[in-house]
Amino acid sequence: MHTQTLSPDTYLQALVFDAYGTLFDVHSVIRRCEELWPGRGQALSQLWRAKQLEYTWLRSLMQRYENFERITEDSLRHACAALKLACEPRHIAALMDEYLRLSTFPETQDALAALGDFKLAILSNGAPAMLQAVVGNAGLNTTIPTVLSVDSLAIYKPDPRVYQLVVDTLDVPPANIGFVSSNCWDACGAKSFGFTTFWVNRGGAPMDALGVTPDHIVQNLAGIPPLLKR
Amino acid sequence: MHTQTLSPDTYLQALVFDAYGTLFDVHSVIRRCEELWPGRGQALSQLWRAKQLEYTWLRSLMQRYENFERITEDSLRHACAALKLACEPRHIAALMDEYLRLSTFPETQDALAALGDFKLAILSNGAPAMLQAVVGNAGLNTTIPTVLSVDSLAIYKPDPRVYQLVVDTLDVPPANIGFVSSNCWDACGAKSFGFTTFWVNRGGAPMDALGVTPDHIVQNLAGIPPLLKR
Repeated sequence: MHTQTLSPDTYLQALVFDAYGTLFDVHSVIRRCEELWPGRGQALSQLWRAKQLEYTWLRSLMQRYENFERITEDSLRHACAALKLACEPRHIAALMDEYLRLSTFPETQDALAALGDFKLAILSNGAPAMLQAVVGNAGLNTTIPTVLSVDSLAIYKPDPRVYQLVVDTLDVPPANIGFVSSNCWDACGAKSFGFTTFWVNRGGAPMDALGVTPDHIVQNLAGIPPLLKR
Repeated sequence: MHTQTLSPDTYLQALVFDAYGTLFDVHSVIRRCEELWPGRGQALSQLWRAKQLEYTWLRSLMQRYENFERITEDSLRHACAALKLACEPRHIAALMDEYLRLSTFPETQDALAALGDFKLAILSNGAPAMLQAVVGNAGLNTTIPTVLSVDSLAIYKPDPRVYQLVVDTLDVPPANIGFVSSNCWDACGAKSFGFTTFWVNRGGAPMDALGVTPDHIVQNLAGIPPLLKR
């Protein structure tokens, strides 16, 4: 695991976070899946998440964008059909509602508090209404003043235009932006664009092979403030 | 399942096939995985295939193209690491070699023979050397005279530029091209571009939700000639 401190010439002004799985724990969605389809919750959650991402990439390449709320519902229906689970409107409503009130991880609040010197922002695939709700319900509105959705661009991560949105909105050059994601491919996409990147590898997954690698790997968000001591 | 015959105004001049899983059966690769890692072959094959596709989409969006041979090796290494399986150079060599000598499906040869009136082509993510080998080893060189790889474009399916390559090479308008794939997302990508599409749904998978749907669904390649009777 990389633990080197940032070189003195890497002066970060802003820290930008992915939302789902990075700041917010989707465990409650998985638990709810298990309640709705006992014994199949984990299989469903895994396939749902895989299809959700797949649809973001495919629709980006096909130039057929739909927002993340729609994609999340579509991928849930597909995953249920593939696993031959009945998927009624009440199931979808319950799970989409769960998405709006995700918990933060145990260390999220303290880590963000320790990073108060930086401009903080979220950059997420999430639809604006989904993001607004989950950030508000977690009480992060004032801690993270800038919440950016890909929706205005109608394209998903890791298209470089998504990362450019941060540069344009915060008015900070890429070299001075740190980007934090629990998805290795997202950290790689941000690194490829030019950010300094932190991969939050909670599960000890192997690195993806995408031509670039994250600058830092941490086990959870608490690993970031020590790397940024000035 | 759709079984309607093509409307009289849909006059196809060319039929274009995806390669892996559509004309060629990747079952032997799965069997070889099981030989190399007994008891883990199926899990490895599934993760390998998922990562292989994921890397094509991610690298396309990141504008960091590497050819399909490289991606196939990278995704194999990643899948082995994720499943904690030892992956030595001899394993990779054995599996990559298997890719060059895939069998066709039992109905492939007869179906292609029944479609002799059409211009026939392959459009594949595969690297040119991989495609040349597998087509040659299966004895399809003369049956399918045109073999197109995305490699010259440095982008993967379902980017529309990939399907445009067929139009430019065969000099046939999109409306007169039929496209056949066992991947629903590939058939959807081709449909989105403007082809008449045939989804070979061997496994009875549910339809993907990508904003367009294939024109025809068949259980295997033998279902296509009856749809094209003039």
